[in-house]
Order: sequence, then C-alpha cells, then structure tokens
Amino acid sequence: VSPAGGGRGPCSSSQRLLNYSDALISIIATVMILPVAHTKMEDDEQLRQSFQLLLTTKIAVYLMTFLIVTVAWAAHIRLFQVIVYVDDCLALLNLACMMIITFLPYTFSLMASFPDNGLGLLLFCGSVMIIGLIQSGIVLYAFSRPVLLSDQIQMSENRSSYKHHILKVIMRVPIMCFFASVISFVFFQLSYALLAVVVFLPYISQGVKWCRSKAIGHVDESPDAMLFSSFLPSEALSKERVEAFSDGVYAIVATLLILDICEDNVPDPTAVKKTFGGSLVAALQVYGPQYLAYFGSFATVGLLWFVHHSLFLHVTRTTRLMGLLNTFSLAFVGGLPLAYQLTQEFPRNSRNELEAVQISCVIVFFAGIFQLSIFVVALFSQQETLHPHVRHGGREHVFMLAKLALYPCVALTTFVLTCFLTKFSASIFHLMEVTVPLAFLVLRLSVRLGLAALRHVFCPEA
Amino acid sequence: VSPAGGGRGPCSSSQRLLNYSDALISIIATVMILPVAHTKMEDDEQLRQSFQLLLTTKIAVYLMTFLIVTVAWAAHIRLFQVIVYVDDCLALLNLACMMIITFLPYTFSLMASFPDNGLGLLLFCGSVMIIGLIQSGIVLYAFSRPVLLSDQIQMSENRSSYKHHILKVIMRVPIMCFFASVISFVFFQLSYALLAVVVFLPYISQGVKWCRSKAIGHVDESPDAMLFSSFLPSEALSKERVEAFSDGVYAIVATLLILDICEDNVPDPTAVKKTFGGSLVAALQVYGPQYLAYFGSFATVGLLWFVHHSLFLHVTRTTRLMGLLNTFSLAFVGGLPLAYQLTQEFPRNSRNELEAVQISCVIVFFAGIFQLSIFVVALFSQQETLHPHVRHGGREHVFMLAKLALYPCVALTTFVLTCFLTKFSASIFHLMEVTVPLAFLVLRLSVRLGLAALRHVFCPEA
Repeated sequence: VSPAGGGRGPCSSSQRLLNYSDALISIIATVMILPVAHTKMEDDEQLRQSFQLLLTTKIAVYLMTFLIVTVAWAAHIRLFQVIVYVDDCLALLNLACMMIITFLPYTFSLMASFPDNGLGLLLFCGSVMIIGLIQSGIVLYAFSRPVLLSDQIQMSENRSSYKHHILKVIMRVPIMCFFASVISFVFFQLSYALLAVVVFLPYISQGVKWCRSKAIGHVDESPDAMLFSSFLPSEALSKERVEAFSDGVYAIVATLLILDICEDNVPDPTAVKKTFGGSLVAALQVYGPQYLAYFGSFATVGLLWFVHHSLFLHVTRTTRLMGLLNTFSLAFVGGLPLAYQLTQEFPRNSRNELEAVQISCVIVFFAGIFQLSIFVVALFSQQETLHPHVRHGGREHVFMLAKLALYPCVALTTFVLTCFLTKFSASIFHLMEVTVPLAFLVLRLSVRLGLAALRHVFCPEA
Repeated sequence: VSPAGGGRGPCSSSQRLLNYSDALISIIATVMILPVAHTKMEDDEQLRQSFQLLLTTKIAVYLMTFLIVTVAWAAHIRLFQVIVYVDDCLALLNLACMMIITFLPYTFSLMASFPDNGLGLLLFCGSVMIIGLIQSGIVLYAFSRPVLLSDQIQMSENRSSYKHHILKVIMRVPIMCFFASVISFVFFQLSYALLAVVVFLPYISQGVKWCRSKAIGHVDESPDAMLFSSFLPSEALSKERVEAFSDGVYAIVATLLILDICEDNVPDPTAVKKTFGGSLVAALQVYGPQYLAYFGSFATVGLLWFVHHSLFLHVTRTTRLMGLLNTFSLAFVGGLPLAYQLTQEFPRNSRNELEAVQISCVIVFFAGIFQLSIFVVALFSQQETLHPHVRHGGREHVFMLAKLALYPCVALTTFVLTCFLTKFSASIFHLMEVTVPLAFLVLRLSVRLGLAALRHVFCPEA
C-alpha cells in the first residue's frame, strides 16, 4: 500500500475520489423525488384526478432524470477505468464536474414546474454540455501526463487514437443535448424525446451494430477493438462502483423520511400549550401515523438493501444489462418515500388511503421484481457472472431465488388482498411490513424444509 | 476473493455492511443541522438577539448530538473489528440497530424545541438503551457462532472472558443513559451534563487509568490486555471507516443546499404569470443570491474534502485523538450550509449580512484548523501515523502544511478584512470563494518558489 503512488510523485489511486463521487451522484439521483413527494394533495376524493394529472408528468420526469444521472455516472465509471491515478488537478476538475451534476436536479424541478417553458430544458442541456467539456478537459489533461493512465494504455503505442475515441464517446451526449436545446426553440416535445433517446443511446448503438453485422455479414473489428474494451458499451461495469452507488441510494432513501419528520413533526411550543394543555405526549400522538410510515419505509428500504447485498455477494461480474436493471430497481426504491408519505396522509378507510396503499405495493413490487430480474439475467451467463454457490444446482441457488422473490410475492399478495378487503387495506399493509423481516429469518428454514419435502415426495428412496 | 467466505457457509466479509452503515450514520449525524438552519429569522437588526437566544441552544444541542452519534459510530467500528464476518441474522440485527440510530435526530429536535420537557431526553435515552440491547444481541449471537469472529479471538481459549469484556464496554453508555433518564425526572440540567460526560467517557476513563498508574505505581496489566486491544480506547480507528464516514458527511453537506433550492426556489407558475408577466428568467433572477450561496458552499465543502483527501492519502494509521479532531472538523463542516444560508438571507450591506459573513468565516476557520491539527498531532508520532513523504523533512511536508493552512488563513484574512471594510463584506467573501480553488492550483508552484527563495537566502552556496 503506497499512498503516494510509488514513483508517481504527487498522484495517487483514485479509489477515494470515486467513492466520494459515487456518494454525491447517488444523493443527487435520489433527492429529485422530493419535489414530487412534497406536491400538495387534496384530502378528499380527488386523489385520482389530481394524482394522475399533476404527478404523472412529475414522476415521468423524475424517472427520466434518474436515468440521465445514472448515464452520467456510467460515463464517469468508464472514464476512471482509463484514468486510474489522480493528482490534485484532476481531483479539482472532478469536483467541478460534480458541482454541475448536483445542479441537474434543479433544472429538473424547473422542467417539472414549467413543462411548457424551454428554460429548464436549456439549463439542463447547458449543464450537460459543461459536464462534457470538463470531462474532455480531464481526458486531455490525463493523456498529457500518461503516468495517470491505466497500465494497458500507458504501454500502448497508439495512445492518441485512444484519446480521440474516448473524446468521441464522451462528447456524444453533450452534442445530442446541444441539438435538443436548438430544437427546443422550435418544437420542444421533440427535445424531450431526444433526451429520452440519450438514455438508451448505448443500447441503441449496440443494437444497430448487431443489425449491421447480421445484414452485411461479420465485419472485421479493428485490431484495436479489444484495447478499447473499457470504452465499449458491452463492457462490464465496475462491481465495486455499482455497489457503492446502490448503497448511497439506499442510504439516502432510508433517511429521506426522517428529514421530513425532523422538520415538520416537531410541534410548536405555543400550539402545545394552547391545544393540548401543555402535554407534549398528547401533541406527539397526533403524529403516530408518520412514525409508523417512517419505520415502515426504513424497514422496507433496509430489507431491499439486504436482498441486494445478498445478491451482489454472489455476483462476480456486472454486465451492462444487469447495471440497467439495477438502475430501474433503484429508481423504484427512490419512489418509496413518496409512497409511504402517501399512506399516512389520508384519513382511515378513505378511497385515497386505499389507492395510496396500492401504489406503495406497486412500487415495492417493481423494486423487487427488477432485483429478481438481475439474478435471472445473470443466470443466462452464469459462468462469468455468478459464484458457483448460486448457479443452477448450487447449494444457495433456491435460497437466493426465494429471497429475491419474497418482496414481489408479498407486494402482489398485499395488493390483491387490499382489492378484496378494502376496509382493512392499511392494517394489511402494516401487517406486511412487520412480518417481512421475520419472513427473512424463517426463509432459510422453510426453504430447507421445502426441499426436504420435495425430495421426500419425488425420490423417497434417496 | 471468495464471496461466500470460503468454508464459512452463508456468512461473508462485512465490508459492504460497514459501508452502508457508515453512509447511514454520516447522513444522520449531519441532517441534524436542518432544524437549526431552517429556524425562521427576523429580517432587520434583531439578528444578534434572536440568533444568540434561539440558535445558541440549538447549535449546542446539534454539536452534542453530532458527537454522540459519532460515539455510537466509534462503538460500531470497534464491534465490527471483533466480528469480521456477517451472516443474514447479523445483517438484519445491524439494520435494526441503524433504524434506531436514524431516529436519534428526531429526539434531538424535540430536545431543542422543548428544552424544559423531559420527553425528548427520555426518548433519546430510550433509543440509546435499545441500541445497546441490540448490540449486545449481536455480540451474543456472534460468540455463539465463533466462525464469524476475527481469527485472533476464534483461536483464543478464553473466548468467554472476551465476551464479558466487550459486553461491559458496550453497555457502559446505555447504562449512563438509564441513569440520565432516571435523573431527568428530578433535575434534568444534570441529565444533559451526564450525556456530555458520555461523549468524553473514553478519554476520561483513559485519564483516570493514567492517574491511577501514576499514583500507585505501575499496575500489572492482565496478560490478556494486549488481546483486548481492539476494545481498548487507545486503539486506532479503522482508517477506511474514518474515510468512509468523512466522505458521507462531506457528500451530504455539499448537497444539503441543493435540496432546499429544489424545494423552495422553483417559482410558482401563477406567481410568474402575475408578477413577472410570464417571464421565467425574470422570476429566477430573484433567486440569484441563492445560486451563488449554493455554488459557494459546494466549492468550499468540496475543497475541504479535497484537503482531507490529500491528508488521509498520507496517513497510515488513525489514532483516537486524530479521530476526535476529525469529528470536530466534520461538525463544523456540517454547519456550513447554515452559514451559507445566512449569507444570502439578508439585504446587502445590512448589519445582519456582515455578521452572517463573519459567522461563515468562523465556521470555515474552525473546520480548517481542526484538519490542520490532525496533521500536527500526527507529526508527534509520525513514525506510526504518517507516510515518509510528509514527515518532517519529507518532500511533501511543506506542501501538505501549506494546503492545510490555506483555508484557516483565508478565513482569518477575510474575517479581519470584513471588520475594517464592512461595506464590502459580501463582495470580499464571494471573491474569497472564487479565488481559493485557484489558490490550490498555484499553491504547489508557490511553495516550490518559496522554498527555492529560502534556500537562496540562507544557503546561497548550495
């Protein structure tokens, strides 16, 4: 462990810089749910209308911006797979880049509040272009001091062709944003569509390449193709950074509700004196549902993290598709505080409460089902992506499946039950929250018993 | 890299569990500044009175709770230096522990709003006692499955004496909290004092031990003393976890202001139509100072992180004293959003603005000076704690000192300047923000020039 990078002078391993960047990006991707969650809502039978009219656009923009921030993050990963040592200048450039990235949520808020005004979109595109310029600056600086680059590139003879390739990849998104901002002056529904394309660009270009190779036969890859691997979209993401980013999202989401509780649920001293005769306990009892919502959301997020942790313990390599599914799962996890805030906002047994509970179930279901699909996708190339224990026939395989399937199943059951037993929807939901942690504890036992029972039924001799 | 812990069955390295815990604890330690920062303030000459009366108590409680959360975190570090592998049950117990820790800020908010009501204190003590019970549960569970313990303890013969020692150390703080809650029914200024003692307990007990050894001569340490090392207060903290915790605090603090901006500084569509004739640009210009405050605070926090990063790159071992100084530094960093929010809240050239700028300078000064003191303390035992490059006479020594001294010096200069040039206080402050990042870039050059000049003056022959 050589802190100053051996003979590299004042440059050093980029590990901590990356951790800090991951923390910042995960916070920023997630806090965008706040303007959505704090949208004022009517207390009676208007949830359906107001929710569908106002929130649908906001939620769509939240999801889109979550994806765009994760695209910026994926670009950051690939960039620092090439640049593996940092010096002071690079660290400062990276901080500048982070500063602009953290400004993205605000442009998102403007877009959500003024969907018909192009300014939010322009600011967003402007930020993305500045980020692109700073990242190009990082690349140019790093290639001017090759000691910072990964060994593979440092040794390579055609370093400058690398540089051009990387710059091309980095500038793709900013250039699309430039076009989007130009188009926004004319017809800006199209610019939103263009931004949506940006998110799926790596997958689209991959698809085009695949189609072309099918159409005109196998095209000889340039001999450098292998060397460019860390900048090809099919290349695996760094597993450590996927974990760090996910940890950041789970940690922020788990604590978002306590932020609100600390701000809004401390009663006013004068109000306590007037309304509750000075009894703080009586004043706090009013907030009972909020505390329940907090502990419920923390438990759900914590257990989803626990499932994620169990899964990635056995993942040895993260493909881009697994990364995308993980992003989708995280986007739904980010919606959890919204869902839980809804469940405690409406009077017992109202139609609104029922819908809020059902929305929570849907969000939990999708967060869980995308986690499950990471595992299912990994199983298709299990030799490269999974630890032997959880592959088909491994001793942890069934247990891992059961763990991953628990939340989708529970959410689905709760949803169906609330459709029939509408009166008890909130009770059913809270019961679900309490039983799931216990379910994880008894899961191992029940899987073992289930397997033994199956074995007993199908091959009683063995 | 054996993800399933080799032959350990379904248990695994605790690395990611610790990262997630660090993220949660750092968020919780920091968000407590929010109720302080959002205290409504009068817009005229009453800052001095309202600030001193209302905020002083709140800030004191914020600092105290920051320290208490970091004590919980230090206990968590020591606990997981003994337990180095985790299984599902331990992970779930740890999540339960985290859930209670994240509830601490709310009890803090209650204490701050109702300093004369014992309920906040009771809830706080209750939470700490529950945390103690869960941690004891973790210890008992881990010792019942020795495969989870560190190799050193696993091999040891007197495992049960370990267990008792660790349980004793863990239960110390909860038991003090129990007494504090009992006392609070009688006389609760005393309970607050008792809680303050809790924070410094490790240092007090260390001091008592030292005094006793001086008074009655050298006491033979029990032969196991060395083995208990990871539970002795003089033992070093894990450097990785200090870094992870600091990263979390810096990341949250850097983004706290954008949270507020996303919530509060998006103009209302109807207001834009009425007041600004539909011009969004005009409506946004009103928020100019807020954007400046955001970028200023992000830059300052980012650069303080940068200094911290440079320092810990060359730290090889973190003693408890260095950890404490780091905590103090972070507590002031946590106050930065408050300071920057103040600077943009008051009209130009008011007395309030001047005081807000000066408060910002004081906070930046202390954040920087505690960072500097980490290095100074480390120099006293430089053989164990520092990389050769930055020791006395090392080639990076002067540069590191200059980096660490930059923020304290700049803050002090700004403070003195604003005392004389009161009219330009805000301009001076914003100029400072802009020049500091550049200062870091030219620092290396100027240190080199300075050293060359000194050499030229004092030993012109060399």
